[in-house]
Amino acid sequence: MPSITCSGSIALDTTRTPFKTAEMVLGGAASYFSLSSSFFAPTSIVSVVGGDFPDKYWQILAKKANIESVQRKEEGKTFHFDSTFSFDLYHRQANKTELNVLGEFEPKLGSEAAKSEFLYLATMPPQKQMEVMVQAKNKKLVFMDTIEFYIKTELPKVQQVITMVDGVVLNDAEARMLTNESNLVKCGKKIEALGPKIVIIKKGEHGSLLFFKGKVIPFPAFPLEVVVDPTGAGDAFAGGLVGSLAKQNATNPSLEQLKVAMGYANVCGSLAVEDFSVDKLVSTNNAEIEKRFRDYCELLRI
Amino acid sequence: MPSITCSGSIALDTTRTPFKTAEMVLGGAASYFSLSSSFFAPTSIVSVVGGDFPDKYWQILAKKANIESVQRKEEGKTFHFDSTFSFDLYHRQANKTELNVLGEFEPKLGSEAAKSEFLYLATMPPQKQMEVMVQAKNKKLVFMDTIEFYIKTELPKVQQVITMVDGVVLNDAEARMLTNESNLVKCGKKIEALGPKIVIIKKGEHGSLLFFKGKVIPFPAFPLEVVVDPTGAGDAFAGGLVGSLAKQNATNPSLEQLKVAMGYANVCGSLAVEDFSVDKLVSTNNAEIEKRFRDYCELLRI
Repeated sequence: MPSITCSGSIALDTTRTPFKTAEMVLGGAASYFSLSSSFFAPTSIVSVVGGDFPDKYWQILAKKANIESVQRKEEGKTFHFDSTFSFDLYHRQANKTELNVLGEFEPKLGSEAAKSEFLYLATMPPQKQMEVMVQAKNKKLVFMDTIEFYIKTELPKVQQVITMVDGVVLNDAEARMLTNESNLVKCGKKIEALGPKIVIIKKGEHGSLLFFKGKVIPFPAFPLEVVVDPTGAGDAFAGGLVGSLAKQNATNPSLEQLKVAMGYANVCGSLAVEDFSVDKLVSTNNAEIEKRFRDYCELLRI
Repeated sequence: MPSITCSGSIALDTTRTPFKTAEMVLGGAASYFSLSSSFFAPTSIVSVVGGDFPDKYWQILAKKANIESVQRKEEGKTFHFDSTFSFDLYHRQANKTELNVLGEFEPKLGSEAAKSEFLYLATMPPQKQMEVMVQAKNKKLVFMDTIEFYIKTELPKVQQVITMVDGVVLNDAEARMLTNESNLVKCGKKIEALGPKIVIIKKGEHGSLLFFKGKVIPFPAFPLEVVVDPTGAGDAFAGGLVGSLAKQNATNPSLEQLKVAMGYANVCGSLAVEDFSVDKLVSTNNAEIEKRFRDYCELLRI
């Protein structure tokens, strides 16, 4: 079976919502991504943690993913992100971003990570994303994400990475900033024009848009009555997307294969927000994922 | 074939966008609704215009709808709405709202309007909506809309109308104000609990949610690269919805019939915004509507 490698952050998150505060819980793009993608295909993580990283979180990741390429810097501290959500859980304010060991991170892919056909470059400095790509000798399909910070500070490098990948997964604000366009259909087409054959723009609770071969395909989010913690939804979404493509062995995906993958992406994103931290991704199972996928497809069918 | 009656405003709109200003053009909920619904089933309008209402607009409405119940008050002026859209066409600021003849409007349904099985109560004071309902002797399926102004100033009356109808069509801001809830799934369920068996929450470019028999079904908007004038999208949406239900003779619609109607609602809403005023609804045809409906269903199919 094809496998997946994901490079990106492992974090200790402090998440403050109007209902509860969770302190120093497992977070980071690579955690959400891999706990989601590993339901579909074997996943390796490329990341770094500090000496303070709790053993119980190490075990959660080790149980679901290959972590031979996760460096443990005993003398340092794990990346820490502290944020507060607004009453409607729609707006998030960053209180503290302590990069710690992530600031000096030099990604090194072990033998398993280097073998994967599917590669996901979660947010990292664009230079590091390129270094991961170089080391992933067997890559066939590469997706990337980035954030407004790197679009602002390292635009030419971000654009260079975009020209090197097959797929881009961004949220609406990032897509607008990258392209200087307001209309998201125009944004997507401008990003497509940079080279990647697959562009996905995420709109949180409002769903997502897939751009592929001149088509623009809208996907609503799975409607949820209770959202507990929106952290990581986008990374769990990407995990379902790349996971499903790997499971389909779709190194050169068709529109049909991409639509199935977008369905699983929406399912994983919706599961992730139903509990704090990665708790729901840890407690869910294949049966629940498959049921929600069938429900989602059925909802959309006219 | 079953027929439709729509009560609501006919307006002269002045619409200012960053690209163009259209002055004193045909607008109003009843215009957008009926120019959309009349593609599906015969439609009667219940409304009022002033002596200044241009003959060319009268002809546009007369050609597509039965206007025997549109009063013409020669001594008065037509309802005039002047508004400015933000650069991204997402936010609208009202500059002037001159009710004119609409302020004193006493709806009177002629024989054709009173015969319709399908009734759409576009925004009007809730007392007037009730008067229309009383006069619509043959009504089998009734939908209503309202605006934040009446939710703020006449909440008990608005709630009373809601208990009397089969379906409610609101936008997200109205649904939140009506229910005091932030989460739209909770909003929809609270409105359902007031009595109507069909609740639809519109989210503009982000699509819509249908609440029916305990299910929550999300519909994305048809993705558009060029939006010219968002005015009337919600009323054109409602016209496609009620129009399609009438064409299906669905006085007691099934989920399947409602999904088809939501598809046509999205199609009509997306067409309406492609040109200023009602221009696109006037220039389009059945073939274009059917093609976009097939495209929409195909986009959604996983």
